[in-house]
Amino acid sequence: MSYNFGTNCLFLTHHRCVTHLYSIPLLNAFKFKFYNLISDCSLQNKFFQKYHTATDSPFMGSGGIKLSMDELNRKTVEEFKQSDKTPLIAVLENIRSAYNVGSVFRTADAFLLEAIYITGYTCVPPHKEIKKTALGAEDTVDWKHFANATEAIKALKENGYKVYAVEQAINSLMLQNIQFEPNEKIAVIFGNEVTGVEQETILQCDGCIEIPQLGMKHSLNIATAAGVVLWEIVRSRIS
Amino acid sequence: MSYNFGTNCLFLTHHRCVTHLYSIPLLNAFKFKFYNLISDCSLQNKFFQKYHTATDSPFMGSGGIKLSMDELNRKTVEEFKQSDKTPLIAVLENIRSAYNVGSVFRTADAFLLEAIYITGYTCVPPHKEIKKTALGAEDTVDWKHFANATEAIKALKENGYKVYAVEQAINSLMLQNIQFEPNEKIAVIFGNEVTGVEQETILQCDGCIEIPQLGMKHSLNIATAAGVVLWEIVRSRIS
Repeated sequence: MSYNFGTNCLFLTHHRCVTHLYSIPLLNAFKFKFYNLISDCSLQNKFFQKYHTATDSPFMGSGGIKLSMDELNRKTVEEFKQSDKTPLIAVLENIRSAYNVGSVFRTADAFLLEAIYITGYTCVPPHKEIKKTALGAEDTVDWKHFANATEAIKALKENGYKVYAVEQAINSLMLQNIQFEPNEKIAVIFGNEVTGVEQETILQCDGCIEIPQLGMKHSLNIATAAGVVLWEIVRSRIS
Repeated sequence: MSYNFGTNCLFLTHHRCVTHLYSIPLLNAFKFKFYNLISDCSLQNKFFQKYHTATDSPFMGSGGIKLSMDELNRKTVEEFKQSDKTPLIAVLENIRSAYNVGSVFRTADAFLLEAIYITGYTCVPPHKEIKKTALGAEDTVDWKHFANATEAIKALKENGYKVYAVEQAINSLMLQNIQFEPNEKIAVIFGNEVTGVEQETILQCDGCIEIPQLGMKHSLNIATAAGVVLWEIVRSRIS
């Protein structure tokens, strides 16, 4: 393999030899410095994209080069709105912290959720603290407010959603064992930071999903729990 | 099936008929109210544990009854310290927010992690803001501070850990595709809220793990990302 980017690049032409002479982390650090020296951005990207995907790349032994913001190739608000969504809705019941609400918006954006249903006294956008953790995701993800979870569940069931509470209950389904159909419409309810999902709400659900917890604490932070459960449902649909 | 808890309980003796007469949510709400009427706690638990696990329980169609704090049967600090841990270490590099650090402690407690390695300017316990989100998990989970990630990686590799950065990089492994051996020792590095894992750190890793992100935002909250990645590694070991 050889690249012709000028005389500075000579060592790359014979990189197989070089890898025998230097340790891989040292070589990679050196190449990373060289990469930063290339002033032409498109040339830089072209060079590394080609180089990194080579099966004999000496970079294979390291974590490689971070993608730039442009390379992440994310959606605009408009593109997000027009995308086919994951048929998955997160329901937030009586969440006290607006920061937690904002974090769930950010996760819902990442996993392309259909919507967030906000119920009870959970605060709604626009809100200064939601914005601080959602960082703009409150503009992409659709949301709707309901006076209480009962109303949200009614609307969800009318639209063909199966509704699960994330809670530790008798007969709850352990997260690692749940299996949903690829296009099944699912809604998951996350409850208050201290009291969890209301018992009356749970009785209206199709089941409870439980995150296995093996330590001392009784629960996870709600934004973390939302990340874990939403990921588990999304992962099977993007594999 | 019949239960003899006194005359108030008559409707349960013939519950199959009752489910035909009332909608299940209504019946469950009714039973929940009845459940709360039983003043003897151990009788209450005995009743529902027996009743809920019955295959023909009319509660099967609902989320059931929440477990009490006692029923969650969590470990004490001492029991946690003595437990066999998941051979998994979370490394926190230059995390700005102590709240995020605390949340990761709480997740590490839930998933019985070996330790948290705290590097760079990430704050360490005891710390008021860590406590606010860790809620005691900073007392169960072992932690160690290193001046920088390089030193932590050196210690990890000497102890046989494979080290991955959670980052979006060329050639990164998509989270849903990673497969670790059941007892493989794994460390995952989570980076700063804005700049992510340092490029120099990544070059010392065995690879990058990437959480698929399909929306507009470039990243997840670090505590959420930690929940998602740690769960993915833990799930395969508890299935």
